[in-house]
Amino acid sequence: MRISLSVAYEGTNYHGWQIQPNGITIESVLNQALSDLLGEKIEVIGASRTDAGVHSMGNIAVFDTDTRIPAEKISYALNQRLPQDIVVQESKEVPADFHPRHCNSRKTYEYRILNRRFQNPLRRRDTYFYYYALDVEQMRKAAQVLVGEHDFKSFCSIHTCVETTVRTIYSLDVEKEGDVICIRICGSGFLYHMVRIIAGTLVQAGSGMIAPGQMKEILEKKDRSAAGPTAPACGLTMMGIEFGGR
Amino acid sequence: MRISLSVAYEGTNYHGWQIQPNGITIESVLNQALSDLLGEKIEVIGASRTDAGVHSMGNIAVFDTDTRIPAEKISYALNQRLPQDIVVQESKEVPADFHPRHCNSRKTYEYRILNRRFQNPLRRRDTYFYYYALDVEQMRKAAQVLVGEHDFKSFCSIHTCVETTVRTIYSLDVEKEGDVICIRICGSGFLYHMVRIIAGTLVQAGSGMIAPGQMKEILEKKDRSAAGPTAPACGLTMMGIEFGGR
Repeated sequence: MRISLSVAYEGTNYHGWQIQPNGITIESVLNQALSDLLGEKIEVIGASRTDAGVHSMGNIAVFDTDTRIPAEKISYALNQRLPQDIVVQESKEVPADFHPRHCNSRKTYEYRILNRRFQNPLRRRDTYFYYYALDVEQMRKAAQVLVGEHDFKSFCSIHTCVETTVRTIYSLDVEKEGDVICIRICGSGFLYHMVRIIAGTLVQAGSGMIAPGQMKEILEKKDRSAAGPTAPACGLTMMGIEFGGR
Repeated sequence: MRISLSVAYEGTNYHGWQIQPNGITIESVLNQALSDLLGEKIEVIGASRTDAGVHSMGNIAVFDTDTRIPAEKISYALNQRLPQDIVVQESKEVPADFHPRHCNSRKTYEYRILNRRFQNPLRRRDTYFYYYALDVEQMRKAAQVLVGEHDFKSFCSIHTCVETTVRTIYSLDVEKEGDVICIRICGSGFLYHMVRIIAGTLVQAGSGMIAPGQMKEILEKKDRSAAGPTAPACGLTMMGIEFGGR
């Protein structure tokens, strides 16, 4: 049967999702724990290959197994074998042809900025600490320009090759709660570093370095150097994925 | 001059505030960093001697120095020398007779419970993970019984000797935000483990093991065994202290 796992992790101590020749990754730890638990060689397929230091509340990993353990019990058994910074939130059976990257989906990410005078040691791992006061209203205005289908070439790391840089952003909200500014972005898929470059550009909008009206121009330039810097990985969390009809 | 520091820390990796013969503490790290920075032997006095694993957003440390560094600049210079899990939030001059433990004050603590089916790896250090669903309304009703001046002997660790176990709780609120239940308690002072025993007892109220009506009886028994267990240190954060007239 084919099993889908919803996986939460703190990415601080991992070299990202995808197996690397050197360095421990979420994928390699999951493969090892699943293979040990089920007594067969397991290789998961991940929905989102998050970068080093990026967190998740609900990345999806899919694998095939001959086990007799009921699908929904695998989460509990697996968590016994996983380190504290990786916790499976749900396990369930999915159709045999389900593939987490080859079907229509809506992915949601949150980028969190801690905007205050001094670092908060309790939030240093899952937020990006930014000292200068940010204007949330300006960030919101700038964000709205990016919603919809656009060529996001300016918001894509140059170290990438994809067929097309056109993507659709369904929603892009900026909320402030206490001293944490949360950028919540939902889309069909994202280019390499796209969410972090959007976050870095919205920080520039919030600090007055870019006017919200310039966002359209940045998109149209189709040039990475037109957008802001790539914001640090620690602020980014993959929140979850909804799969639609295939 | 006498300087007061507001100190935030993640307590996970410390043996509490107070200097110990074995094990690193917040107080010892502060003394070392301050002595190195100022070139004189510094020994801070802390307002709240938090236990091992307890966090802070605003514990107060006071010391005397002959330095010419302006009081408000000490925070920035000191943070350069402190580890990432201790961050001074403010430094200021206080009157020469100011003592953080010998004056009227209102201390606020938060005890946070992560109440969901699976652990959230991003909140594992600053919340207490509790699997069974808690009824916040029952917790609130139980909490209200404790507000005011009472003999809190039932809510005090037996490993303690104090002149009196009478204390005043000014407010005790229970709020739920997402899957985190926050118990916020404000009082003139607290007995050893008092906040964690109150949290452990409110968890029992929230899970139906204790009826809110029993809280009065627990207080009146003046017996530690009448109250609930001491909740784990990781859920507790010292939020701040307000000093009144002395």
